[in-house]
Amino acid sequence: MSHRSKEFETIFASATNGIKQLLSVPDGFHIFFTGSATEIWERSIQNLVAQQSYHFVNGAFSKRYFEIAQQLGKTAIKKESPAGQAFTDYQINDDIELIALTHNETSTGVSLPMDFIHSFRDKFPKALIVVDAVSSLPYPAFDFTKIDSLFFSVQKGLGLPAGLGVWIVNDKCLAKADSLLTKGISIGTYHNLPTLYANAKKNQTPETPNVLSIYLLAKVVEDFLTRSVHTIRKETEYKAAVLYNTLNQIGYAKPFVNDPSIQSQSVIVTDCGTHVEKISKALIEKGLIPGEGYGEFKKTHLRFANFPTHSKEQFELLADTLSGLKV
Amino acid sequence: MSHRSKEFETIFASATNGIKQLLSVPDGFHIFFTGSATEIWERSIQNLVAQQSYHFVNGAFSKRYFEIAQQLGKTAIKKESPAGQAFTDYQINDDIELIALTHNETSTGVSLPMDFIHSFRDKFPKALIVVDAVSSLPYPAFDFTKIDSLFFSVQKGLGLPAGLGVWIVNDKCLAKADSLLTKGISIGTYHNLPTLYANAKKNQTPETPNVLSIYLLAKVVEDFLTRSVHTIRKETEYKAAVLYNTLNQIGYAKPFVNDPSIQSQSVIVTDCGTHVEKISKALIEKGLIPGEGYGEFKKTHLRFANFPTHSKEQFELLADTLSGLKV
Repeated sequence: MSHRSKEFETIFASATNGIKQLLSVPDGFHIFFTGSATEIWERSIQNLVAQQSYHFVNGAFSKRYFEIAQQLGKTAIKKESPAGQAFTDYQINDDIELIALTHNETSTGVSLPMDFIHSFRDKFPKALIVVDAVSSLPYPAFDFTKIDSLFFSVQKGLGLPAGLGVWIVNDKCLAKADSLLTKGISIGTYHNLPTLYANAKKNQTPETPNVLSIYLLAKVVEDFLTRSVHTIRKETEYKAAVLYNTLNQIGYAKPFVNDPSIQSQSVIVTDCGTHVEKISKALIEKGLIPGEGYGEFKKTHLRFANFPTHSKEQFELLADTLSGLKV
Repeated sequence: MSHRSKEFETIFASATNGIKQLLSVPDGFHIFFTGSATEIWERSIQNLVAQQSYHFVNGAFSKRYFEIAQQLGKTAIKKESPAGQAFTDYQINDDIELIALTHNETSTGVSLPMDFIHSFRDKFPKALIVVDAVSSLPYPAFDFTKIDSLFFSVQKGLGLPAGLGVWIVNDKCLAKADSLLTKGISIGTYHNLPTLYANAKKNQTPETPNVLSIYLLAKVVEDFLTRSVHTIRKETEYKAAVLYNTLNQIGYAKPFVNDPSIQSQSVIVTDCGTHVEKISKALIEKGLIPGEGYGEFKKTHLRFANFPTHSKEQFELLADTLSGLKV
């Protein structure tokens, strides 16, 4: 299928309208596609920051976003919190152009509280609030009056093959990119915001995109809408509760994140100490595949994804298996 | 499948080794994946040009590559030839950093002769010779001692769903990107050449890539190797000959490109004058779907793709249908 055909435009419209409905994205926001969420790290800094961005860093992924801003020659400022812990304080200049928040830090299983994410708009009215929700959407319900941009990729909560990033931006972001361009700052080429927007208005993309993935995304979102996002969110919380409850009861492993207010619902990271291998083996025997620990925690953590594709029954089996395990 | 797994590394190695074998890519060249060939237009300029690039422009796609160099703030110089015609002369400064050649201009059906492409290395030893072969590979047999970089995307000659660009570069390109970085010139972030190379050495990608497409690419290349690239090339020439021969005989339509030495073998553009609709209708009735004319030629041209996926029998049916048509 040609990506300049009416058929493609219908698929594009179906995917973007579906996402708007699923996440209650209001007017004044626009949805664009990229090759990955990693690309959105780069494009967001390139298009939205002339000089300074501020990054809340609490793990490998939020750190990578910060480093990309540095690589692009921006003055990137970070507030770093220890792995698995909350941000307690921060000092942000009133003139900061962009505040980067990673809703769900996949490496450690910390989720930023929604109140925290939504608290920046009023305090820093000049800043663009950009939220990376790669490994949590469609679970979190963002208030779009409090953020300016949101992005994710399709291989986590959407359960699709990798190779597509979804970037939601509002008119303030478009205006900011235009202003950088006017100042002679490079905002890239085919995937800069003005070009993405000019194409998206016609339900098109600048380049030949991952058409198959956009098509599948439209279909998955349609399915989610049939199930209702409220149901999916409640089911996510139920499954997370089943696992956290078990982890709090068994003695040989525990949640890596202690503070319940920042425990991720979508990526549950478990500190297994020296028992990683034994636990893995028992789970794999039941057809349950845990994720490895990330980076320095490779040998002591296991990570459990809790996405819409994972059933309640799988989580109940996971909890039962962990409860019954003699370590 | 995790893109950091051994299984993915095996797929990556299978795809890249397969391409090296298929196209006889020698040692000292490396293969990287991007989201699209459009991305490679941007990344190649960003990573390989400090100041000046030279572009042979003979249609919409070669022009777009030129414009991307301009958008990135480089001094882009172009030699433009009229649609459908050969480049007759050019003047290139000895200090030019990059010479951009579009092997097959999809918008008009002009292919640059291989001798022309291979003539620049000796004349401009300091320049990087970069060849866009998006709509022609695997047909053309490039001499890798005469070029420094070659790229394509998978939705044309490879017959795969869109969403993956394949970028081949040699060590000179890697060294050039390093030298730009040393000079403080921005070469991008996750998809700059040093990062792509550091990951590719481990059979990995910087970002979560289009794993499915890389897998399918490996399989298609395996199939091509079984059929042999020589056979595919000879079949391509046979199918092109069948169509060009018919177009030279029927009176109501003719090849848009008159000079046989620059007639594309992989995208055969036909000047149908006022008969586009009638011809289209007759072909569609036989299950043959012609491509529309590009841009200003939308209403007078039809474009016929001649890729490995198209059979000899389809081209024979196409020729018979055109021959039998009363206009």
